[in-house]
Amino acid sequence: MDKILRIDMGAEGGPKATVAPIGNYAGLGGRGLTSAIVSKEVPPTCHPLGEDNKLVIAPGMLSGTTAAMSGRISVGCKSPLTGGIKEANAGGQAAQCLARLGYAAIVLEGKPKTDDTYKVLINSDGVQITVDNSLKMLGNYATIDKIKEQYGDKVACISIGPAGEMKLGAASVACTDMEMRPTRHAGRGGVGAVMGAKRVKAIVIDDSGCKMRSPKDPEKFKDACKRWVDGLKTHPVTSQGLPLFGTNVLTNVINEAGGYPTHNFSMGRFPGHQSISGETQAARETERGGSATHGCHRGCIIQCSGIYNDKDGNYLTKQPEYETVWAHGGNCGIDDLDVIAQLDRLDDDFGLDTIEMGATIGVAMEAGVAKFGDGQAAINLVKEVGQGTPLGRILGSGAAVTGKVFGVERVPVVKGQAMPAYDPRAVQGIGVTYATSPMGADHTSGYAVAQNIMKVGGDVDPQSPEGQTALSRELQITTAAVDSTGMCLFVAFAAMDQPDTFQALIDIINSFYGLSLTGDDVAALGKSILKNEREFNLAAGFSKADDRLPPFMKKQALSPHNIVFKVKDEDLDSVFNW
Amino acid sequence: MDKILRIDMGAEGGPKATVAPIGNYAGLGGRGLTSAIVSKEVPPTCHPLGEDNKLVIAPGMLSGTTAAMSGRISVGCKSPLTGGIKEANAGGQAAQCLARLGYAAIVLEGKPKTDDTYKVLINSDGVQITVDNSLKMLGNYATIDKIKEQYGDKVACISIGPAGEMKLGAASVACTDMEMRPTRHAGRGGVGAVMGAKRVKAIVIDDSGCKMRSPKDPEKFKDACKRWVDGLKTHPVTSQGLPLFGTNVLTNVINEAGGYPTHNFSMGRFPGHQSISGETQAARETERGGSATHGCHRGCIIQCSGIYNDKDGNYLTKQPEYETVWAHGGNCGIDDLDVIAQLDRLDDDFGLDTIEMGATIGVAMEAGVAKFGDGQAAINLVKEVGQGTPLGRILGSGAAVTGKVFGVERVPVVKGQAMPAYDPRAVQGIGVTYATSPMGADHTSGYAVAQNIMKVGGDVDPQSPEGQTALSRELQITTAAVDSTGMCLFVAFAAMDQPDTFQALIDIINSFYGLSLTGDDVAALGKSILKNEREFNLAAGFSKADDRLPPFMKKQALSPHNIVFKVKDEDLDSVFNW
Repeated sequence: MDKILRIDMGAEGGPKATVAPIGNYAGLGGRGLTSAIVSKEVPPTCHPLGEDNKLVIAPGMLSGTTAAMSGRISVGCKSPLTGGIKEANAGGQAAQCLARLGYAAIVLEGKPKTDDTYKVLINSDGVQITVDNSLKMLGNYATIDKIKEQYGDKVACISIGPAGEMKLGAASVACTDMEMRPTRHAGRGGVGAVMGAKRVKAIVIDDSGCKMRSPKDPEKFKDACKRWVDGLKTHPVTSQGLPLFGTNVLTNVINEAGGYPTHNFSMGRFPGHQSISGETQAARETERGGSATHGCHRGCIIQCSGIYNDKDGNYLTKQPEYETVWAHGGNCGIDDLDVIAQLDRLDDDFGLDTIEMGATIGVAMEAGVAKFGDGQAAINLVKEVGQGTPLGRILGSGAAVTGKVFGVERVPVVKGQAMPAYDPRAVQGIGVTYATSPMGADHTSGYAVAQNIMKVGGDVDPQSPEGQTALSRELQITTAAVDSTGMCLFVAFAAMDQPDTFQALIDIINSFYGLSLTGDDVAALGKSILKNEREFNLAAGFSKADDRLPPFMKKQALSPHNIVFKVKDEDLDSVFNW
Repeated sequence: MDKILRIDMGAEGGPKATVAPIGNYAGLGGRGLTSAIVSKEVPPTCHPLGEDNKLVIAPGMLSGTTAAMSGRISVGCKSPLTGGIKEANAGGQAAQCLARLGYAAIVLEGKPKTDDTYKVLINSDGVQITVDNSLKMLGNYATIDKIKEQYGDKVACISIGPAGEMKLGAASVACTDMEMRPTRHAGRGGVGAVMGAKRVKAIVIDDSGCKMRSPKDPEKFKDACKRWVDGLKTHPVTSQGLPLFGTNVLTNVINEAGGYPTHNFSMGRFPGHQSISGETQAARETERGGSATHGCHRGCIIQCSGIYNDKDGNYLTKQPEYETVWAHGGNCGIDDLDVIAQLDRLDDDFGLDTIEMGATIGVAMEAGVAKFGDGQAAINLVKEVGQGTPLGRILGSGAAVTGKVFGVERVPVVKGQAMPAYDPRAVQGIGVTYATSPMGADHTSGYAVAQNIMKVGGDVDPQSPEGQTALSRELQITTAAVDSTGMCLFVAFAAMDQPDTFQALIDIINSFYGLSLTGDDVAALGKSILKNEREFNLAAGFSKADDRLPPFMKKQALSPHNIVFKVKDEDLDSVFNW
């Protein structure tokens, strides 16, 4: 991981690849690296789909090592959805393969001069860029089928579906999982549209012949890795809740807390929650011969995923995440897991962010485009996106655009990005994160749900504005750092509650790189990332007014607790005063 | 004009009208009044379609008097198109009638609790608000036909078409002209959508029995009015160019200057310009028994408008303005005046801003939705807007949304509002106004074309960045003041070139109100309006980055002069340093 691959898609005579040493970016990985490159090299006021934007794909600092859970890959750019800086990350196999090939990042630059569609092959021989118009407008599944025919099923692939090619604001970047299915998505912020603007359909990563990355101090590394695994195998969330029921274990929990956004954020509880809960989902997966416990990449020991088969026992999609089940489920009044699984499959195939799509359909339902609860209508709407009809393009552009086009007032977005599955009125801490994260409304960038609801890593009253600002600040700092390591964010449950596990993570980094970082250094890294991101957004035109929830959150009380968002504006403005 | 009518559309039991003395707003009119009320009473971060926004309709300070040219009416609100403060003004009869009834403003507030459509009647007996669902989704022409049946043809009417009812970003507010046709539109910024959100379809203003407003010093007023008329009858632009050929006299002029945005701002000259010039248009109007010289309201002596008949000699629409002919013409590669006139008629009927619609179709053509030059396709696209199809809703939401939905990079907007008919690369002064006006891209808010191209009121090289900032600053200040008087902006040609005519305008105000204002006071008024507007926008979230032209203006050279926009960012940031 000491080199960066840059591909100038707009070069004279066609795309040109250059590999150069990592230079000044040395020591960075994942979000730390993508945000550093974007904030240093991309003009903040450029058009997100223009030649000046760059798409940066970076494995984490620990990706490609034997450290468990280190398979996350970050995708960064100026976001076509928010207009600000964006990092979205995903699991799957790509991070490990890319890291083992020695690449700290791939940077797609410039703008092609023709309408051709490109495919990139990266292996130990180097980099090959070829025109492959046979891939044009294929779904991610069909794309991967073609890649498999040509390169076998041992490679990893990063690809976009038709949504990315259409440059839609909800377009994701897909990464293949262990079974080489395109199920792991860097979903948020329209990163797929930027890859589409660069006309790169697929990046094939073949690490055959490559070894695991080797640590500076193998003994210490091995010891730290063992303590790390022990910690993850001890904490109830990472050893029981997530493996058994997946992220969807949260449906009943958040619904009980009255923070489950229902019918486009108009209620806090969904009557049909039991039909779509993690418990129901796991039972069905097992019953149909799928799996309720499965990893998204080799080296995962939490195994929060699963395999969702259809009624005939055939593979339909990977286990839909809690946020997906919510977005396409309760938020749209849909209580049928089979419908939700079909929507998940369509999103993955077209290359769409499930959160943005579910929130968008909720807004469209509020506008009367379809009825709340009508699953078939929701399926038809997502199919319109894949077909690129005018209605499909509206929806594929996300909730904010859909709200504008249909004149809807209740549009749950911050900085143009749709809110995920936790209502900030009943979970005020996550509201602070939604409002202030440089990413737009994003639960992963400071998951205060842990302390507000699950009481992991602390206990802060979810309905009170007190303490939420400090909580979100700490979480955003830590998360920015974790997002740089390549570690799955779910390790945080154990690391926040168990000091030994947190120390094991620091020891892994130190022994691998020959460093002597402390917890304070980790915080400093997180702060420096957030500072880069905030400065980019400021220069792009963001102001305090962008660090706010939409007005309805302060005016419309949420049932059953009849509560509005109560954190004061001046407190929101203090989140980054550290 | 010493009272304000407020209608709370969200009142318990249905809309409630209250008339109260003007109070602290005394002395203000037109844009000065709308911007004062909006900036004082509307929360800058509210949803433009929500209960907290207000639609303020205000005649100018001199409307309803015998002073020539005083028939402009201002419509203000938080704009659904830009997200900032908005004032759009229109001619027609409404300003004079409302002023003679004594109203300084109508303020529509709140949000109705039902889906009913309302009609408001204002006459010397008071105010009547009634449900009239028979008007729902009618075009402006059909709406006015129904109003005429009920109230006769001597009233004035302010109405919205289906676009406003659908709350689209390009929706206008229509005012009837002397023939009681809905041809005069407060077009820009989606003010019609805010009226639609208030569910007010039509405001009927019956001033029968009312007298002209009387001046404090009738003798001095009469003398000043005479000098005013003499000045307007002397200057070549107001006495010859505009009466003979209308605003469309500019087609050949701007095309010759290489500043005529063609094919979605990709070229500076349109090969078909002669087919759609003001000279061609005037000849055709006369030949078909229409009229090339016509006023939009009683009291107009410039008579820049006209009547455009179809091939059979039947009324089709009022004479399309230069900006309309450009937007639907050269910008879309269309060189057929009959097509353009049909588009103008459709826009007026659906209640759409012709500039926004033409620019939007240009963007859609660049996206491949239709071919440049295909007039029938353009007509079909505007009809889609009227029908409210998904494609129509996209287009009706304006150029910025259309660019997002179709993934287009070259989108000619500032603050989300489309640029009018002057390319800022060849007319750099108007570029400064587009970039910095609180209104978004708007030629009328600081018409530097006068000094850059027409050499009226000064001479500043259009292709040089030098002197443009100072020019735009002065023009924006003066314009804000003129927009408060109710005077048609075209008086500025004479007032800028002829000191006596400028003095006559000040004397009209002084003698009418018993004041002793000087030119400095006029400038102070303009500055205070701009300050209000800028502060609103700042609080709504605008920053320096919003005072910029889109990136392509600095990167893509415009033919035939091969020139980019050259005014520096720091100079743009100095426009409001006075």
